[in-house]
Amino acid sequence: MCGFRLVQIVGRSCIIQNVRAYQKMSCDTINPHVVKLQYAVRGPIVLRALELEKEISQGSKKRFDKIIRCNIGDCHASGQRPISFIREVLCATTNTQIMDTNLVQDDAKLRARRFLDSCGGSVGVYSQSTGVEVVREDVAQYIEQRDQLSANPQNIFLSNGASEAVKSILQLISTGEDGSRRSGVMVPIPQYPLYSATNAEYNAYQIDYYLDESNGWDLSIEQLEEALNKCKDKCIPRALVVINPGNPTGQLLSKDTITSVLKFAYKHNLVVLADEVYQHNIYAPDTGFTSFKRALHDIRGRISTELQLASFMSCSKGYMGECGLRGGYCELVNFPEDVQQQLYKSLSARLCSSLLGQLTMDVVVNPPKPHEPSYNSFMEEKSSVLEELKQKAELTTKSLNSLQGFSCNPITGAMYAFPRIDLPKKAIEIAKSKGMQPDFMYCLELLEEYGVCVVPGSGFGQVPGTWHFRT
Amino acid sequence: MCGFRLVQIVGRSCIIQNVRAYQKMSCDTINPHVVKLQYAVRGPIVLRALELEKEISQGSKKRFDKIIRCNIGDCHASGQRPISFIREVLCATTNTQIMDTNLVQDDAKLRARRFLDSCGGSVGVYSQSTGVEVVREDVAQYIEQRDQLSANPQNIFLSNGASEAVKSILQLISTGEDGSRRSGVMVPIPQYPLYSATNAEYNAYQIDYYLDESNGWDLSIEQLEEALNKCKDKCIPRALVVINPGNPTGQLLSKDTITSVLKFAYKHNLVVLADEVYQHNIYAPDTGFTSFKRALHDIRGRISTELQLASFMSCSKGYMGECGLRGGYCELVNFPEDVQQQLYKSLSARLCSSLLGQLTMDVVVNPPKPHEPSYNSFMEEKSSVLEELKQKAELTTKSLNSLQGFSCNPITGAMYAFPRIDLPKKAIEIAKSKGMQPDFMYCLELLEEYGVCVVPGSGFGQVPGTWHFRT
Repeated sequence: MCGFRLVQIVGRSCIIQNVRAYQKMSCDTINPHVVKLQYAVRGPIVLRALELEKEISQGSKKRFDKIIRCNIGDCHASGQRPISFIREVLCATTNTQIMDTNLVQDDAKLRARRFLDSCGGSVGVYSQSTGVEVVREDVAQYIEQRDQLSANPQNIFLSNGASEAVKSILQLISTGEDGSRRSGVMVPIPQYPLYSATNAEYNAYQIDYYLDESNGWDLSIEQLEEALNKCKDKCIPRALVVINPGNPTGQLLSKDTITSVLKFAYKHNLVVLADEVYQHNIYAPDTGFTSFKRALHDIRGRISTELQLASFMSCSKGYMGECGLRGGYCELVNFPEDVQQQLYKSLSARLCSSLLGQLTMDVVVNPPKPHEPSYNSFMEEKSSVLEELKQKAELTTKSLNSLQGFSCNPITGAMYAFPRIDLPKKAIEIAKSKGMQPDFMYCLELLEEYGVCVVPGSGFGQVPGTWHFRT
Repeated sequence: MCGFRLVQIVGRSCIIQNVRAYQKMSCDTINPHVVKLQYAVRGPIVLRALELEKEISQGSKKRFDKIIRCNIGDCHASGQRPISFIREVLCATTNTQIMDTNLVQDDAKLRARRFLDSCGGSVGVYSQSTGVEVVREDVAQYIEQRDQLSANPQNIFLSNGASEAVKSILQLISTGEDGSRRSGVMVPIPQYPLYSATNAEYNAYQIDYYLDESNGWDLSIEQLEEALNKCKDKCIPRALVVINPGNPTGQLLSKDTITSVLKFAYKHNLVVLADEVYQHNIYAPDTGFTSFKRALHDIRGRISTELQLASFMSCSKGYMGECGLRGGYCELVNFPEDVQQQLYKSLSARLCSSLLGQLTMDVVVNPPKPHEPSYNSFMEEKSSVLEELKQKAELTTKSLNSLQGFSCNPITGAMYAFPRIDLPKKAIEIAKSKGMQPDFMYCLELLEEYGVCVVPGSGFGQVPGTWHFRT
């Protein structure tokens, strides 16, 4: 914006001075991928909930006293109590004077001491970019016990929650060009919007595949093939994201399904991103959690030593729910050495993830053992949280299905329900006349009228013409 | 890679089966910007130091017992003790049972309680994407007291160290295209390599400007103009990075210099990124720290209400040195509302920064007050650390300048020296014959022979034909 300003009128002639205005950034001049990025879990409904909370705290009268936040898997915010053992270790590590008291158990002190010894005596140091070595060793042991397969600490890196690890892998495979060279990333619909947000951020082409609501949100290979076929000319498909147990859909995949998914990925040269952060949240009576790594190994043959797999875990979910501490890890399977080095190099510019997040992850993968003093209380607290989540899952499904116009698949894993709502034709028309998605309008009214904050299905994706919300 | 495999020979005819090999990722197929990214502070010299440490721990005999790590501003790793008050607040917040004991002072409990009240009672919750509200309020108050200017918590966001905030701003302004639409970012040489790494990551065009070693690493406007002119046809210049006090150069900018820099940025439509993380590390006898915000305000006129400025602060440096806790903040000045919303939206996909990092930042900006019980001990610990750093700065400069072939500017701020080394012609020839940069070879020999780990100047940038290292 160059302009001219009339500065002085002398007789009949004007003295005009060239005035160059400072050009501020605008949404047209900043990174277009940032503008495109959407993240519904923190979208307009949640911002409105924040406003309402402020209004209530300032004395404004509503039909409710407080907002019930069902928008996000934020366990402690929903009243879940932290696991004492985790907090004992954290407090002894941050303030070593606690070690000289009886305020924390000996096994908590032991973990605090071991962690401090491995990082030079203070949580105030930078760790290696991939994380403190003993934590990566403990993660490897945890995976070995879970899968009965060897795991190498060199193939594990620690991150600020699982989100940071997911982003770093998606960044690694995004080639960011338009047209035929652009990377394609297959993402389930409905999905956790971190994936769509990150694909927008790194300009990857998102290939949506639908989960089958009529079949307990199952994942069908036909659907994967169909989705892939549709967009082969728009990108180079490079990765396949699977969330197991599902978010927002709450389903647990069977080992057979996982095996088929892995074979599909192998056939099409895809890297598999297995979001397994809900691996402790299993409510199905007879089925346990099978990791993608275990299923891959059991296929045997070249696929098991070739297919590239990244598995993500977090300390924000499960029985611990320590979202705010930002602990997570990623295990890389069959990644070429040089690519892995490139990834680790890219992590180094952020120096390291939070050391207390790393420590929390350490306690999760190395909990008290049967002979240790905290074992009984730890197991009691853990079971109690998981039992409560299971009851909530059953109650939620039952209540939703008893309501007219609602239908909800059984929740066999994770922490969410994603019920379908049959909206009357008239409601859909009103929403459209207001320029809103019908499920968005429904969620907004639920918030304004009852103070309940849930996220509309459109933020996660849904079959066109169907409406849902996540709670 | 499609191939054919001979599977069976039947008589004279061959049955050939189509075998498609799985295509693994390679450095040729992953994100080229990740491949380009370099981060010297964690580069090959540091990796070699890690190897040497491992060899020593496994009993291998060297001329030294341990590696002296001078590669990174990692205060606690260099023996600096954490500030007790920070650790008291952290431990009371993670384990609220501590509140019922006399292990921590009442003012530490007060801060722990206030923080917990503002985030629902547990550090295990997600905060708002921009950070816990009371912390942003405390940061605003800190800035108000520092600058005697108002500050708005809405314009402040909290981050995992300052690095994450820097990356988010550079990402925001990077338009990522090649050719004439690509964003240009002006970066001082020598620089902290986070900037070059992030510019590579987001495909911004880096415009190097040299600091004047012969004039105490001062920043000259002529040099800025010259650097900008050289590359106007290669990019759209969008941002100017200034590090004050300097890293790796250890100089403190005068208010006059800052004023000229701001005017230069205004003239050329640049956003200013002021890396002010060393604002507590000032060793110049008569000069105090002037923030970019304060200097901008004092210019008055349109520039003060228009020029866009982002200022970064961290709890990893200063007297606290809590690198591992990953606390930081960024204040935005004159950012358009809609652009700020885009930035905050992009932060939301990573949910929030570490709550204990946020809490540490809170204690740094809201330290004990004179009437509070921890005040005296806090001030003693703080002064003692800063005094020790000052002495180290003087001793380092003096020792380096007393050595033949070394010259080092006075360190007036930050935590580093960036001495120049005159390498003999023969050494330069040997380095070249080995395919190494001469300063890289020097640093590698310093490590192999004496166990001292410093970073070669080539990682930070230097005038061609001059050689340095950062310590």
